[in-house]
Amino acid sequence: MSKFRIGIDLYGGDNAPDSVIKGAIFAVENKFVKDSTIVLVGDKKDIIDTEKYKQIEFMDAENLIKNSTKPTEALKLKNSSIYIGCEALKNKKLDAFVSAGNTGALLAAGTFVSGRLKGIKRPALALALPGKQNKPRILVDAGANAEVKPEHFKDFALEGIAYAKFMGISNPRVGILNIGTEEEKGSALVKEAANILKSEKKINYVGFIEAREIFDVNFDVLLTDGFTGNNVLKTIEGTAYYILGELKDSIKKGGLFTKLGALLLKSSLYSLKSKIDYRQYGGTFFLGVNGILVKAHGSSDAEAIGNAIYVAYRALDQKLIDNIEVNEGV
Amino acid sequence: MSKFRIGIDLYGGDNAPDSVIKGAIFAVENKFVKDSTIVLVGDKKDIIDTEKYKQIEFMDAENLIKNSTKPTEALKLKNSSIYIGCEALKNKKLDAFVSAGNTGALLAAGTFVSGRLKGIKRPALALALPGKQNKPRILVDAGANAEVKPEHFKDFALEGIAYAKFMGISNPRVGILNIGTEEEKGSALVKEAANILKSEKKINYVGFIEAREIFDVNFDVLLTDGFTGNNVLKTIEGTAYYILGELKDSIKKGGLFTKLGALLLKSSLYSLKSKIDYRQYGGTFFLGVNGILVKAHGSSDAEAIGNAIYVAYRALDQKLIDNIEVNEGV
Repeated sequence: MSKFRIGIDLYGGDNAPDSVIKGAIFAVENKFVKDSTIVLVGDKKDIIDTEKYKQIEFMDAENLIKNSTKPTEALKLKNSSIYIGCEALKNKKLDAFVSAGNTGALLAAGTFVSGRLKGIKRPALALALPGKQNKPRILVDAGANAEVKPEHFKDFALEGIAYAKFMGISNPRVGILNIGTEEEKGSALVKEAANILKSEKKINYVGFIEAREIFDVNFDVLLTDGFTGNNVLKTIEGTAYYILGELKDSIKKGGLFTKLGALLLKSSLYSLKSKIDYRQYGGTFFLGVNGILVKAHGSSDAEAIGNAIYVAYRALDQKLIDNIEVNEGV
Repeated sequence: MSKFRIGIDLYGGDNAPDSVIKGAIFAVENKFVKDSTIVLVGDKKDIIDTEKYKQIEFMDAENLIKNSTKPTEALKLKNSSIYIGCEALKNKKLDAFVSAGNTGALLAAGTFVSGRLKGIKRPALALALPGKQNKPRILVDAGANAEVKPEHFKDFALEGIAYAKFMGISNPRVGILNIGTEEEKGSALVKEAANILKSEKKINYVGFIEAREIFDVNFDVLLTDGFTGNNVLKTIEGTAYYILGELKDSIKKGGLFTKLGALLLKSSLYSLKSKIDYRQYGGTFFLGVNGILVKAHGSSDAEAIGNAIYVAYRALDQKLIDNIEVNEGV
């Protein structure tokens, strides 16, 4: 009997359904899901040899959600792959659901169709970033909630702590992103949030963290509202690509020796690129909802989809969600 | 007769007063201020040979503001170099004032002692960042106002446009930082701000900009609240240092050929470092107040102080402030 049932949105992502089909096969062939079943949520045409890949099944759903579909519209498209996948999480027909599709639609369906965990008001996007000394750090909220209240930071903390434990960090240190480390600095929102976290004995709150320390090792979980978090995340991405692009330009314009230097440094530059590409790292969860919901990047190729399936499997195997509930139930 | 009187806070910065004294001399020796006078705001001990450097004068003030001094406290320290410098702006005893000191104290004194320009409710920190194709871009607010209202984005736009023109950009394109480019994305704040800017015929508003485009060439002025802006700015800094640090580590751990490669690429890496170091670039103004107020980085050395004095001179010479008032006066 299969241990877990991991759903994947057949229609999610720029390269879907091709990337999703190949990604599922990639996951099976690389033994990413062991004793579990991968369920392709979409139209079950003869797209996969399910005789050969016995771990792959289908769940009927239609391709209805575009990138331009608004979250509120998505909630009306009950036959869409995203709706069906999130509903199956709620009904326990799936243990996890992975989608590289429309983020807003997925967050809306996760919240309103899958439903929230007991005691959690605000599910949030939680994401692992690489850091100095190869230590991971969790950013919550990375973009689900554009407007938040101070008390939501407690939910974000519980979600981030559970993710950090999943990444092997015991007793994770929790900080709040702010424009200064002194107590009187920043917005009313973060000051009130800090007071709430200070009074929670189960949360190892370490204070305000400035964005220039975002890759430092003095914290494990960084909390912020979804507007700031998403901007910070995209700033990291924009800065990394800008720096690598400028370096490439400078090498292109350089003489023979510069080009030789670049050639000799090629493997260092390549490992650097993969290191700062957080998409390859950890995974992005929508935490606080019923079931494991993984957001894969829109531009995911087959390997990235395979990795997202693997992330979902590991989260189930290590009971990531129980960690949120246990923390909360006091 | 001297054209402009440019004040510099003798006690501002980690390396003050030494860096400030040497910075003033650096500016004079490099002819940064031509026909103008540099006024050291602080105690006039025999620290400079004013016979030799006739362009340098003193204005009496005391060293009272520490990094830990709160803005509200700073406003009571009327003999401090920051208070005296900002007061001199208001009384036209100085045309510009430069400080590498306590940012919060400087912003408070700028707003409440120097006073605001007519029609401007919210002065803001405006900063030039480098970008692709060597094109500058202006970020407003980079950290002065942690909480803002939609209508303050108009002030930020006027301030940013004036700075962009000072950087040689005609008809600057103004965008608002948001977590998506679609009109329905983001917080209520940015959506309302967008509606206000759309109705301003004198503002060339081009829509929402995502942070991953922050170095792209599709806009010239990027508006955001001071909380987000400061976090974005420090994220750029943190990411740049992280990437360069990881590259350095990887070279250190590499073999002989890797080290040779790094040696051959040295000038490219060096030019990259200076390119992404925004502290060397443009300058940071507190715009919207009476007079040119330049914030130099706390860790400024003599050369950085000299450059900040030069930035103040150019802003006066090119009438940066008139651009804000002319824009506003309709």
